[in-house]
Amino acid sequence: MTDLEWQAQPAEGGEAMYSLVRELYPICRSITGNGVRETLRLIGQHIPLSIREVPTGTQVFDWTVPKEWNIRDAYVKDSEGCRIIDFHESNLHVLNYSVPVHKKVSLKELSEHLFTLPGHPDWIPYRTSYYNETWGFCLSHNEFAGLRDDQYEVHIDASLEEGHLTYGECYLPGESSDEVLLSCHVCHPSLCNDNLSGIALCTFLAKHLHSCSQRYSYRVLFIPGTIGAITWLALNEDKVKRIKHGLVVALVGDPGKLTYKKSRRGNAEIDGAVMHVLKHSGDPYQILDFSPYGYDERQFCSPGFNLPVGSLTRTPYSRYPEYHTSADDLNLVRPEALADSFSKYISILAVLEKNQTYVNQNPKCEPQLGRRGLYREMGGYADGREIELAMLWVLNLSDGGCSLLDIAERAGLRFEVIEVAAGLLGKNGLLKECW
Amino acid sequence: MTDLEWQAQPAEGGEAMYSLVRELYPICRSITGNGVRETLRLIGQHIPLSIREVPTGTQVFDWTVPKEWNIRDAYVKDSEGCRIIDFHESNLHVLNYSVPVHKKVSLKELSEHLFTLPGHPDWIPYRTSYYNETWGFCLSHNEFAGLRDDQYEVHIDASLEEGHLTYGECYLPGESSDEVLLSCHVCHPSLCNDNLSGIALCTFLAKHLHSCSQRYSYRVLFIPGTIGAITWLALNEDKVKRIKHGLVVALVGDPGKLTYKKSRRGNAEIDGAVMHVLKHSGDPYQILDFSPYGYDERQFCSPGFNLPVGSLTRTPYSRYPEYHTSADDLNLVRPEALADSFSKYISILAVLEKNQTYVNQNPKCEPQLGRRGLYREMGGYADGREIELAMLWVLNLSDGGCSLLDIAERAGLRFEVIEVAAGLLGKNGLLKECW
Amino acid sequence: MTDLEWQAQPAEGGEAMYSLVRELYPICRSITGNGVRETLRLIGQHIPLSIREVPTGTQVFDWTVPKEWNIRDAYVKDSEGCRIIDFHESNLHVLNYSVPVHKKVSLKELSEHLFTLPGHPDWIPYRTSYYNETWGFCLSHNEFAGLRDDQYEVHIDASLEEGHLTYGECYLPGESSDEVLLSCHVCHPSLCNDNLSGIALCTFLAKHLHSCSQRYSYRVLFIPGTIGAITWLALNEDKVKRIKHGLVVALVGDPGKLTYKKSRRGNAEIDGAVMHVLKHSGDPYQILDFSPYGYDERQFCSPGFNLPVGSLTRTPYSRYPEYHTSADDLNLVRPEALADSFSKYISILAVLEKNQTYVNQNPKCEPQLGRRGLYREMGGYADGREIELAMLWVLNLSDGGCSLLDIAERAGLRFEVIEVAAGLLGKNGLLKECW
Repeated sequence: MTDLEWQAQPAEGGEAMYSLVRELYPICRSITGNGVRETLRLIGQHIPLSIREVPTGTQVFDWTVPKEWNIRDAYVKDSEGCRIIDFHESNLHVLNYSVPVHKKVSLKELSEHLFTLPGHPDWIPYRTSYYNETWGFCLSHNEFAGLRDDQYEVHIDASLEEGHLTYGECYLPGESSDEVLLSCHVCHPSLCNDNLSGIALCTFLAKHLHSCSQRYSYRVLFIPGTIGAITWLALNEDKVKRIKHGLVVALVGDPGKLTYKKSRRGNAEIDGAVMHVLKHSGDPYQILDFSPYGYDERQFCSPGFNLPVGSLTRTPYSRYPEYHTSADDLNLVRPEALADSFSKYISILAVLEKNQTYVNQNPKCEPQLGRRGLYREMGGYADGREIELAMLWVLNLSDGGCSLLDIAERAGLRFEVIEVAAGLLGKNGLLKECW
Repeated sequence: MTDLEWQAQPAEGGEAMYSLVRELYPICRSITGNGVRETLRLIGQHIPLSIREVPTGTQVFDWTVPKEWNIRDAYVKDSEGCRIIDFHESNLHVLNYSVPVHKKVSLKELSEHLFTLPGHPDWIPYRTSYYNETWGFCLSHNEFAGLRDDQYEVHIDASLEEGHLTYGECYLPGESSDEVLLSCHVCHPSLCNDNLSGIALCTFLAKHLHSCSQRYSYRVLFIPGTIGAITWLALNEDKVKRIKHGLVVALVGDPGKLTYKKSRRGNAEIDGAVMHVLKHSGDPYQILDFSPYGYDERQFCSPGFNLPVGSLTRTPYSRYPEYHTSADDLNLVRPEALADSFSKYISILAVLEKNQTYVNQNPKCEPQLGRRGLYREMGGYADGREIELAMLWVLNLSDGGCSLLDIAERAGLRFEVIEVAAGLLGKNGLLKECW
Repeated sequence: MTDLEWQAQPAEGGEAMYSLVRELYPICRSITGNGVRETLRLIGQHIPLSIREVPTGTQVFDWTVPKEWNIRDAYVKDSEGCRIIDFHESNLHVLNYSVPVHKKVSLKELSEHLFTLPGHPDWIPYRTSYYNETWGFCLSHNEFAGLRDDQYEVHIDASLEEGHLTYGECYLPGESSDEVLLSCHVCHPSLCNDNLSGIALCTFLAKHLHSCSQRYSYRVLFIPGTIGAITWLALNEDKVKRIKHGLVVALVGDPGKLTYKKSRRGNAEIDGAVMHVLKHSGDPYQILDFSPYGYDERQFCSPGFNLPVGSLTRTPYSRYPEYHTSADDLNLVRPEALADSFSKYISILAVLEKNQTYVNQNPKCEPQLGRRGLYREMGGYADGREIELAMLWVLNLSDGGCSLLDIAERAGLRFEVIEVAAGLLGKNGLLKECW
């Protein structure tokens, strides 16, 4: 692994990620169907991506892979033939997974199939009905309020048929078969922060990791939420043991501060690594305990797996008003925020990559660092230099029970300094890796 | 067990408990004697109560059951034959367990046998001398100050003879032989909060528990303080292992906030249950660590037993000025406070009754709650409903290591919600009790 | 052990310690040489002291005992023959461990060998070069600023030759071969707080301990910093297991508040004893976690030894401006501060001496303290007396898992009260020592 590889260029990266968000924005995604396929095709232009197709009806633990949904057009026309709700204006207008329908309805009947957000009367809500076969339209509350008593033609030109659930997987082998999991959901239609931001970040993290050699193998999943995670876990149970650390990637493009939700274990190495990086970043952040609601950490952290997987977002889900509405658009996501998220993720992965547990080879008293050129020759100064302190901490705590990250935390020093100190000691034969 | 049984009616209950306090108030109780017998007879009109008589001289661990004390009359008369201290005005006037005496004494000699409270000159103190044979009178400091140099006739018409230590026990068998212990002391004469309040609460808790079927068996003890607890433990060592939870009941009638003193273990289920109920009650309360001073938790929590027994009072002993004085009277105890204490105790017992540890039968990923009608069909809403969140918490943490109470605490939800969620999951075969 | 022995007389002791500081002040000490020998000779007038001489070249773990350094004279003369820097004015003027030199140098060349403190222009810094053979002078920045372009004669009449490292050891056998270690460094020249204060305190602690019989054996080390501790540990590995508690003694003469730096273990008995004494002293103090920088606790707490050794100072090293300068002189150290430090150390050693773990011989319920005269006979009072509470705490927690110090901490009572309570219980056969 070349240290230099970690020297990412956040500013340019932010624009590149934002371009991908913009490219993916118009596509109507759902948990199955051609929207997901098209999305994965575009991702695949950046990174090596394996596309998996899992047939409808496949049993995945307590669930069954559903029928595949595809949509071509949808509208509501008034009696004058005017499209007053039009799928081509925004794919959020259609209740996601609506069954096909084509008929005339009164305003009363129509209203039973309409969804609005009275609290934000200009915005279209995002609604789904994956497992209950029905149809519906979403629209702004202002538009809804303007509807008059009329005969309406509703038409959803969709199909719900035997097919497949599609997901993408980018596996980047490293020195070890131990894996770091990065996972994002690809099932949301025209919503930017939730979760085109996550898709873009995962794509560019994978691209960057692919460009250099790593200690860990990396597995980056582009999966539909919930059913995709369940499907992946059901079909890959044999691989689960290899996952040593993981992050669910979502909501990484808004200007809010970073938020880390801990793994169910609460004290996994990934938890320590993220909290260390955030603490030393100088930027505001917040830490949340695990809860079984949110994104696919719900599945990765179910008790039968209990994987060391946390979730690093900016503003958490449902804590910003634009969440799951048409206002989660290209204005909410900022290239600088994407770049900052990228940089923090890279720092975290760097900690994981470089974290080791060593054993002091000269455990009785300090070794004479001075004769190895590791300690200044003149004595009597009031304080030690940071790198000297770091070496003393590494020597003192490397008894096989403390990793470099543990030492950094106890010493109150940045991981990078501790890691450099360990490198100097290792070169002088004073440390040995603990296997 | 019928949930409805727990629907107590606090307001009426408060008046009923207060009536019992009023009925018991005039009786001169001590650690032995007819005052205890009469008290137990009146309690026995409400609940099935076994009366135990333990002979004087019985060895109970390091102690010996003392002689039985009974008193008929006591007074101090001045030289004009006027009763200036009269047992029939207040039984607190006699040093409890005074030996019989009848003689003439000077003021000087009399004074050596008088007890007052200079800090509260209107109140009569409560004093005892169980294990040192002497006699004495208690009186207000104002009365004491008015005594003139005179010849006084002192007469205590009492007996201290071979007899019995008397206590009452109400055993209510439940589904399991595992027991919940409720214990109160019955040795105080005309004092209301300490502890007619505890006697009344225990009586009406027992009455209520008797009216419905329970999971646990309940053992409610009406015992003289210290020697009664030691006697019960000595004679019932074989039953001690069945006690899974316990509370010492005292000082539950004053208007102060509730105070829980933890068991010696500090982290027993009873400690968690009480703290959960108090935290979610919305009322002020305080939690104290265990200390080996106080009521009979001193004996139940001695190191050779170390039972999971805490003590739930309102204002703790000696922390209100009326404690152990004639001012701990029928005005200090309020029906509303008794009712509130009753309600809190019932809530705590309900937690114990319903607390269980379950194992998620579908531990890999979430089960599909929607197809069981346990999850709303429409998706995309910003937040989950409380009952859905509760189900996800129960599923996520039911790995055999967390009880419902543990889950409620970690989720920050009320036990009742968690318990209802577990019930729904159990009915759907998703949980199994962990034995 | 006689309790009375602990009744030290701090005031007189402060003056006596200060006299020793004044006597030792002029001597030019270093990590080897006659300055250390003379220092140990003077200490030996107070206590039984074994002097050890370890030959140059002896291998001690990763280090080698260095050549012995001795100095007779040193000066810098200007071209007029005037001593502008004179070793006899202050031994700090010479870079400690300078190699011999005698030559004429320009101001430019001279300047490369001069050390000053621009931030404190009146003070001479203290500098050393133990392991890099060079020469140098230290002087005030004001003197340095006054140097003119001239030819200077530099002369250091020193020797650096095969010889010995010298240290002193005072071993005071007690009832048990388990040891308490007290260690101070003797390598600093004319510096008072760092560490003539520590030498004086160790001397008078040893003198006091020698005057009475103890449970523990005491080992008091007077050693050069770092190399002395390493040498002692290397030559005494067989004795290390006997060390049950230890303190590194330094900086105990300034007026600052006491500072305890915990042992590497962080929860050793010595840590608890020191924190208990400081907490109950009523004086301000601070507690620091262990760090691998400071005095010889660096070696005693290296992972291969990990001894329960903390360090109790007043203001910590480098946290007062006079540290390692000529201003750390006889004015900085105060007899009252020495006396206060002495008194705190004695209190801590008293806790170690008297701390025991007992087992309650009557663990089921309380024993009847009253019939043993240990509890007042009259009942009903609002609160217990401190000694009665202490006895109840000792009985309740003496289950073999809690020492008296643990009990004192949990009870919130002073160790002395708990210890007296345990003594009373022990005399009555209610406690047995737990071996």
